Amino acid sequence: MSTEQAALPERDAAVRASFARQGMMVALGAQLLQVRHGCVVIGLPFSAAVSQQQGTFHGGAIGAIADIAGGYAAMTCAPEGSEVTTVEYKINILAARRGGQLQATGRVLRAGQRVIVTAADVEHVADDGQRTLCAVMQQTLVPVARSY
Amino acid sequence: MSTEQAALPERDAAVRASFARQGMMVALGAQLLQVRHGCVVIGLPFSAAVSQQQGTFHGGAIGAIADIAGGYAAMTCAPEGSEVTTVEYKINILAARRGGQLQATGRVLRAGQRVIVTAADVEHVADDGQRTLCAVMQQTLVPVARSY
Amino acid sequence: MSTEQAALPERDAAVRASFARQGMMVALGAQLLQVRHGCVVIGLPFSAAVSQQQGTFHGGAIGAIADIAGGYAAMTCAPEGSEVTTVEYKINILAARRGGQLQATGRVLRAGQRVIVTAADVEHVADDGQRTLCAVMQQTLVPVARSY
Amino acid sequence: MSTEQAALPERDAAVRASFARQGMMVALGAQLLQVRHGCVVIGLPFSAAVSQQQGTFHGGAIGAIADIAGGYAAMTCAPEGSEVTTVEYKINILAARRGGQLQATGRVLRAGQRVIVTAADVEHVADDGQRTLCAVMQQTLVPVARSY
Repeated sequence: MSTEQAALPERDAAVRASFARQGMMVALGAQLLQVRHGCVVIGLPFSAAVSQQQGTFHGGAIGAIADIAGGYAAMTCAPEGSEVTTVEYKINILAARRGGQLQATGRVLRAGQRVIVTAADVEHVADDGQRTLCAVMQQTLVPVARSY
Repeated sequence: MSTEQAALPERDAAVRASFARQGMMVALGAQLLQVRHGCVVIGLPFSAAVSQQQGTFHGGAIGAIADIAGGYAAMTCAPEGSEVTTVEYKINILAARRGGQLQATGRVLRAGQRVIVTAADVEHVADDGQRTLCAVMQQTLVPVARSY
Repeated sequence: MSTEQAALPERDAAVRASFARQGMMVALGAQLLQVRHGCVVIGLPFSAAVSQQQGTFHGGAIGAIADIAGGYAAMTCAPEGSEVTTVEYKINILAARRGGQLQATGRVLRAGQRVIVTAADVEHVADDGQRTLCAVMQQTLVPVARSY
Repeated sequence: MSTEQAALPERDAAVRASFARQGMMVALGAQLLQVRHGCVVIGLPFSAAVSQQQGTFHGGAIGAIADIAGGYAAMTCAPEGSEVTTVEYKINILAARRGGQLQATGRVLRAGQRVIVTAADVEHVADDGQRTLCAVMQQTLVPVARSY
């Protein structure tokens, strides 16, 4: 899918409103950096709240923002007024990094009526701007009714 | 692998010391409930810090404790003095729940010299004690040197 | 799900008719060993057609029968008259074996209206009866209309 | 990793010799189309031996050639004289097709000393040349000693 196209304004607003309600993303300090049609970017600055025992980003934090980036990318392609829910995802961790921030870019691979498939890359951006691919994810979602 | 056997005392202590260093588990309020040889149980009480936009446990929190339960189960079988690192995991989310707590039980399926394979179940335990299977995970890890 | 219950006769017949139409399963020599409600067992005797370069069962054959065992287990729980199609699966290969046969046991973990989640174990059964767990799989499927 | 570079001649020869020994690939009619450093392409013409019950390519065949494409891509980056073995893979099936042929392109994402991570795309190429993305895969492998 092309990722160059802006999301429709109502979809963009719906994604932003949904993201703001995610208590866990607030607790971890994650940010919604970009919302386009079929593509969403999430940022996560390094902090103790996203670290593991050796002092690098926690695998659970990497997985969480990959899941969310893929999920909101899917939501930009889902029927208007609906949310999406994750059926499953699989993530390979490629590199461990500390400091700087992570950026997870979710992209829709196939937006079916019943099932949406996405992929996400998680890159580390060091304070000097150097980028390292830290994880790759594949994910399956389904549209669900919004309950709020 | 049998999960009935107690972990060796030094492995038990190493797992507990490593878990206590995980900033993200502290931030989410996760607890180390059991450490046996090849089997670890993590608990996670419901709170805003682990919620998503519809008010249920966040998929990222479910994934994080499944990853950690499998990872520490692997550590009980890894060479003494080593940590483990997640190569990859795949999780299917089966049910959404709010309130109560989650319990993730990680079990080692195969502890090779180079690669350790685990599985985890994540159950929801409601305040009245009712249990619901919320997620199943498969995971691959490798032993790594401890850096602290 | 309980796996003790017999499949309804019409589901049993539908699974057997569908399996017999799978050209690839015929080419590989796979057999439908058991059909119960939520649980299907596939057998695969060793032969050149399922071998890899080192002389053991091919990972592709292990994956194929795991996929099929999970898929037909799902079909026993799908709406009457429908087939199922695999959305995705993930498999960990735990051991390499030659000779004897493989047995893949697929079990339904959750049969939703839109999405069915299964797991499968693949065991090797040596000529002397010894069993070894060779692979574990998690899988997602959706019901689809039968086209034949 | 760059995929533009030719594989070293001894690696190219080793991949071709290994592929020719895969009884299952011979039985399915698969072909080794390209071997470059970090990138291998496998072709699979449609036939009864790779079909499922509705007459399209079998998911097991799609998975098998994705696994093999990723595996041989990994082998071009593994230590000289070694084979590789699949630890795990996860595949999303995106589209069903019949006739023509499948092409699986495996690419190395990270070639570590102990673990190699790959991805593969499986495209359908219709008789009129039209290409459709049918599946995406992520895979983990380890180098192993060659036993033949």
